[in-house]
Amino acid sequence: MLALVAWVMVDVAVVGAGQTRYGNHALGLKGMWAEAARSAFSSIDGDFDVKSVDEAYIGSLAFGGAQLGNTAALLTEHSDMEGVPVRRVENACASSGFAFRDAWMAIKSGQADIVVAGGIEKMNDLTPERRRYWLGVSGDTEWERLAGLTFPGTYALMARRYFHEFDASHDDLVHVTVKNHLHGSLNPLAHIQKEVSFEKAASGFMVADPLTLYDCCPTSDGASCVVLAADHVAKRMTDTPVWVRGSGAASDHLALHDRPSITQLKATQTAGRKAYEMANLKPRDIDIAEVHDCFTIAEVLATEDLGFAERGHGGRFAREGQGVINQGSVAVNASGGLKSKGHPLGATGTGQVVEVFKQLRGQVESQRQVKDAEVGLTHNVGGSGATCAVHVFGRDRP
Amino acid sequence: MLALVAWVMVDVAVVGAGQTRYGNHALGLKGMWAEAARSAFSSIDGDFDVKSVDEAYIGSLAFGGAQLGNTAALLTEHSDMEGVPVRRVENACASSGFAFRDAWMAIKSGQADIVVAGGIEKMNDLTPERRRYWLGVSGDTEWERLAGLTFPGTYALMARRYFHEFDASHDDLVHVTVKNHLHGSLNPLAHIQKEVSFEKAASGFMVADPLTLYDCCPTSDGASCVVLAADHVAKRMTDTPVWVRGSGAASDHLALHDRPSITQLKATQTAGRKAYEMANLKPRDIDIAEVHDCFTIAEVLATEDLGFAERGHGGRFAREGQGVINQGSVAVNASGGLKSKGHPLGATGTGQVVEVFKQLRGQVESQRQVKDAEVGLTHNVGGSGATCAVHVFGRDRP
Repeated sequence: MLALVAWVMVDVAVVGAGQTRYGNHALGLKGMWAEAARSAFSSIDGDFDVKSVDEAYIGSLAFGGAQLGNTAALLTEHSDMEGVPVRRVENACASSGFAFRDAWMAIKSGQADIVVAGGIEKMNDLTPERRRYWLGVSGDTEWERLAGLTFPGTYALMARRYFHEFDASHDDLVHVTVKNHLHGSLNPLAHIQKEVSFEKAASGFMVADPLTLYDCCPTSDGASCVVLAADHVAKRMTDTPVWVRGSGAASDHLALHDRPSITQLKATQTAGRKAYEMANLKPRDIDIAEVHDCFTIAEVLATEDLGFAERGHGGRFAREGQGVINQGSVAVNASGGLKSKGHPLGATGTGQVVEVFKQLRGQVESQRQVKDAEVGLTHNVGGSGATCAVHVFGRDRP
Repeated sequence: MLALVAWVMVDVAVVGAGQTRYGNHALGLKGMWAEAARSAFSSIDGDFDVKSVDEAYIGSLAFGGAQLGNTAALLTEHSDMEGVPVRRVENACASSGFAFRDAWMAIKSGQADIVVAGGIEKMNDLTPERRRYWLGVSGDTEWERLAGLTFPGTYALMARRYFHEFDASHDDLVHVTVKNHLHGSLNPLAHIQKEVSFEKAASGFMVADPLTLYDCCPTSDGASCVVLAADHVAKRMTDTPVWVRGSGAASDHLALHDRPSITQLKATQTAGRKAYEMANLKPRDIDIAEVHDCFTIAEVLATEDLGFAERGHGGRFAREGQGVINQGSVAVNASGGLKSKGHPLGATGTGQVVEVFKQLRGQVESQRQVKDAEVGLTHNVGGSGATCAVHVFGRDRP
């Protein structure tokens, strides 16, 4: 009976993926989305008709404040998917990580064969005040935001506490900056395509002690889009599908003061554990991981919470260059990560999938290509850890 | 092989449902949500532990502007579902209709056994300007909102055109008002619990010609919550589950000028057709329908688009009292509908499910109870028809 059920269960593959460059875009929402969708659709080498898309999920927090309601339908309308059942998924900066999860479940449900998941954010046409407002609304409002605590402050608290509890210092965070800028300098889709020296990154101006400018990701516009397909359909869409091997998600208290520890994200730990279990894989099996480094300390915590480093050893992991492409134990943020590739909030989650998809198919620029990458992971966090989605991908079918 | 697949497919039931009263609430977001969730959980007569909820979907447009990002996690945290994977689903006024659809698919996917779907909106602590803004953002921004067209204007255009094309007049809309206020007067959870005479409703002050005050739904606060379960779990949660027999959803152009006809909603027609087909039922099989009457004309169009009346006969359907409880051919908006029960945007979709759930279990106030109700339908529309979700429910298992 169990074997029967397993046999009937549908496997899900990513068969196409694309995105805009992240940065300060001249294009508006519709233009950015159309570019990302076109890029994803044209990456499908076999049979594909956009009219065959059964369902769509688009993640976004604020859309640049323009079209705030029903926006998902506006975007599908402007990318030839008119009529498709679509909804906006919002979980702050984890919006499209959850859009991807929901797209995966739609196919698992047997109700859809081809599903689009994507994300978008237009940050740079907001006034600085509105931008601050829209960034702030994803943290706890009552206890944090209205008391003046913004995200750099939230993550600064985590960093200070981390330095207090473990053998780590700001220098370790500088190593994260240097690595991610190195990776991003090789990525033509990155917001910031330049290397940063250790000395420069160590002496940036203070934003929220101990985090300096070089510890914070930029404010980016951008859109990303991926196409998922059921196994029986995927095979005629491409010869090189990237299989979804595991999906895990979780939530946590919004406010830091409600959490037993602020040097680990429980939502990441839970989501990661579920994704690994489903994939039947261990952290050491991961060749490439796109993790949510909105601030450098977030990457250090993520490497621990996802099992790449022992608890308290995330600083050393960074110091030793364990995340550097083709050098360390796992390529962490080969795209440049949020820090250098950029962070268009709602677009970030599926943007991570775009990178893993290309890496596992050997399709990124040669210097940035992780050699023999077989298994990848994406890690998308909302706010300061209130929501998290982790996905594990493989070239081999589950 | 096909029989095998069908055998393995999971059936989904609603096993619990509850909501706050709709209206002008003293409670804030967290309080309203907690009340709706508690109401849904306590309606489950068999085994239920809130910690067994596998996944949650909460629909909302604006949340009263307080916690705009990551709000879904804030709400589950404050209703004992801490840690559950949750996301906000946004499709304007159809937000929780889609939250419900996604909850249904999560169970169909085999990844979740017990799923919570809900919705919430806090309208009345916004300033009138902000409220107008948040209501407006669900219509097309570029061509309609920024040109000054608000929703009463949009639906007034539909009404005028409808009167031009068909044998109908404003009097038909008055019949909708009178019916829905009659039903709402019997519903202790309704925003407006009083009857309105034909004469009074016919002479309301003009809002957008031909729509008067009595053609427009009120601005309500409220929250609604339902619990869905897989067949093998549902049976130990209740002896009287309400089965999801069909689900259909669709999108359409946001702006009216892009649609071939503005006297029918294509998204409703498509979503309805899919839901009926899945349920293997016809419009005449429906005993009770909760339809999206944000304006009276919307109910007239819905009765046609959902097949209760022939095209062009929706006015007559209203005139003849075909939608009146235990009198017409199908009880339309036995709850009072958006017009009288109220319309807390994101809460409306799952609020409709609450009504159908109670009606099919024979659990509403005696005067409002539709006799021998076996099959029900919910119809939830976003904006002026850009998104739509239709669900068909039955006492009998699919």
